[in-house]
Amino acid sequence: MPRIAEVIAVGTELLLGGTANTDAQDISQGLSELGIHCYYHTTVGDNPGRLREALRIAASRADILITTGGLGPTYDDLTKQTVCEFFGRGLVPHRPTWERIEAYFRRIGAPPTENNRQQALLPEDCVIFENDWGTAPGCAFRAGDTHILMLPGPPRECRAMFRGCAMPYLSSLRSGALVSRVVRVFGLGESRVETLLRERMENARNPTIAPYAREGECFLRVTASAETEAEARALTDPVVAELCRVLHPYVYGVDVDSLENVVFSLLEGHKKTLAAAESCTGGMIAARLTALPGVSRVFRGGVVAYDNRAKHGLLGVPEDILHRHGAVSGPVAEAMARGVCERTGASLGLAVTGLAGPDGDGSDTPVGTVFLALFDAEDGTLNCVRKSLGDERHRVRSAAAGHALNMVRRHFSEKG
Amino acid sequence: MPRIAEVIAVGTELLLGGTANTDAQDISQGLSELGIHCYYHTTVGDNPGRLREALRIAASRADILITTGGLGPTYDDLTKQTVCEFFGRGLVPHRPTWERIEAYFRRIGAPPTENNRQQALLPEDCVIFENDWGTAPGCAFRAGDTHILMLPGPPRECRAMFRGCAMPYLSSLRSGALVSRVVRVFGLGESRVETLLRERMENARNPTIAPYAREGECFLRVTASAETEAEARALTDPVVAELCRVLHPYVYGVDVDSLENVVFSLLEGHKKTLAAAESCTGGMIAARLTALPGVSRVFRGGVVAYDNRAKHGLLGVPEDILHRHGAVSGPVAEAMARGVCERTGASLGLAVTGLAGPDGDGSDTPVGTVFLALFDAEDGTLNCVRKSLGDERHRVRSAAAGHALNMVRRHFSEKG
Repeated sequence: MPRIAEVIAVGTELLLGGTANTDAQDISQGLSELGIHCYYHTTVGDNPGRLREALRIAASRADILITTGGLGPTYDDLTKQTVCEFFGRGLVPHRPTWERIEAYFRRIGAPPTENNRQQALLPEDCVIFENDWGTAPGCAFRAGDTHILMLPGPPRECRAMFRGCAMPYLSSLRSGALVSRVVRVFGLGESRVETLLRERMENARNPTIAPYAREGECFLRVTASAETEAEARALTDPVVAELCRVLHPYVYGVDVDSLENVVFSLLEGHKKTLAAAESCTGGMIAARLTALPGVSRVFRGGVVAYDNRAKHGLLGVPEDILHRHGAVSGPVAEAMARGVCERTGASLGLAVTGLAGPDGDGSDTPVGTVFLALFDAEDGTLNCVRKSLGDERHRVRSAAAGHALNMVRRHFSEKG
Repeated sequence: MPRIAEVIAVGTELLLGGTANTDAQDISQGLSELGIHCYYHTTVGDNPGRLREALRIAASRADILITTGGLGPTYDDLTKQTVCEFFGRGLVPHRPTWERIEAYFRRIGAPPTENNRQQALLPEDCVIFENDWGTAPGCAFRAGDTHILMLPGPPRECRAMFRGCAMPYLSSLRSGALVSRVVRVFGLGESRVETLLRERMENARNPTIAPYAREGECFLRVTASAETEAEARALTDPVVAELCRVLHPYVYGVDVDSLENVVFSLLEGHKKTLAAAESCTGGMIAARLTALPGVSRVFRGGVVAYDNRAKHGLLGVPEDILHRHGAVSGPVAEAMARGVCERTGASLGLAVTGLAGPDGDGSDTPVGTVFLALFDAEDGTLNCVRKSLGDERHRVRSAAAGHALNMVRRHFSEKG
């Protein structure tokens, strides 16, 4: 059974720094879910000689080679040609692909060239991965003990095809079952999580525990393999429970998509609606929530009250409170939370006001100070907290948005 | 003079998919600005044997090796040890680094170990890159004709040290000057830009022309090298002018940071203020603008009017307009733009209402339909446009935010 994969990304734009190699990340995440090791990523440009060199090196140390990029109709069909030459595999015409390419050229009003015709060729005796999101199909074939998978470069296409086609293909190569679960944490730094769990992570074999960090959040993937899925799941259960215990109350969910998703579900489950009044986060809370399809069922909208006039004019924050306490203060956050509730009819009003920096506001309030308030119009409760979120503008804003969403989450978990 | 660089990222978290290798992207972008070629990126885990293998391969095909990661005080000091062993370079104690490590352990309340002491060692006879953003310094040394640079892994530290220390170090290795300029384009797809410019790009030698795509935008980097900076700049001038001519009116700036930055400058230059009323973009316009320090001078704030109640309650959109035309309509966009102006006292009101999907709204308005309106309260002009922005929720939202900002830009450029 093949166990070691290597990812080869093909694209000069990656070597010019035009884009980050997120394909390698997406693929690696999937590989670790499948329990397949990956020891190297390589990136090469649109250059057959250097791709051949990368294939030679990769084939000497891995038994699953996954390429991304170089398959699209506007590029030279570099990857397929070079890979097939390297593995001595013929290329045969694939009718549906040719039809798609023809349609593409009809659309842009140009005739396809001989080069385009070659793009409709696929390796002999391969498994075709249909591309529902672009023109170039992917494929997989076996050469001796090595499996070669070719995926398109555009991240959306690559991710969808890897999840939809390549992961099932790779799964079928191995026996037994694998279960992978994710414990999500907010409000505890990565290094704190590592300190708390380092020993557990290092000693974990089956299941394994791997930490990930993303934009101020942290999550832990617990992966177990066994004969059956039920057995694998049973292996993960006590570890997930243990992590939730150690990291309580920072765990916001297990196998959930994001903090905003959890907030969405809680609002829906409790039949509540939310509106947000944002100062320093300037729309980030609303943008995160409105990224979720269907969120209009629970999210009324909000106000970006970036200066005092907007705080007064759009939210009705009394001018004397603004003057007496300053815009970055608990009383202003509370008045914003009440104001946005009243003006949208939402049952919960969330408000953030803070100093994101880089400059202060002339008062002695330090940069990074943020006040968060949550008003529950139904029972009249009003909570307000003050946070110090560092001195880097982007981090302060993004952490403040996270803390605000987490405040809504905890409002429900504390009410039980 | 060394000309070919290779980037080696060290970190098991990269191979597990926990994070994207943005360090390689940042470094590559800087290398292309310096006119240094980069033919491969490699990623290896925290494993000395595999790092040694990567160094062996890289040293055989490049004369500048840049490593990222594996320098921090909580990791095994893998990179420095392995690199120095490989190049037969001794390690000597570096006092300031040791003091920082001691301070770190005092802070976390644990005694430093022998392993930590080794982290204060740096290669003999190296150039030290101070790290103002973390504990681990970077460094560079020369071994024969090869230059080795070691940078920390955390993206902020890596980017700052690469820009602040490594780029000057690499610049000093070469004679002559290099000028790099960026033409930014909005509203023209990457493939259209490629079609328009393919031949020019392929034939360009000095300056070179390289395209980049990012979240619905596209930009072109023009890089020239010459004896002096003035000569290099003179080489770029006609090419930049030519690109601006060919891509007019889609070019929104040369050597500018972003569309929102251009809008910020235009507003400031024309002494105007802006407020935004967002429906389908749900705060994305406000979030992009408020990411800019000092934007409160021109941006009053806005309203995320995600449902009809908020459109009416927060913006005063008349209910009969909502009923007669539907929320996704020109008259509603116009009323939103007027409303947000009135309620914030801004001189310009920008409004977006659209159908981001995945589901329709029950009417026959197709998903992806977006209405944008801009109201100028000072001269009373009101513009409204309708766009069809595809059927993928994230793309519709992000393109709508871009088109809205671009509408403000064009409002000024058309007025002259």
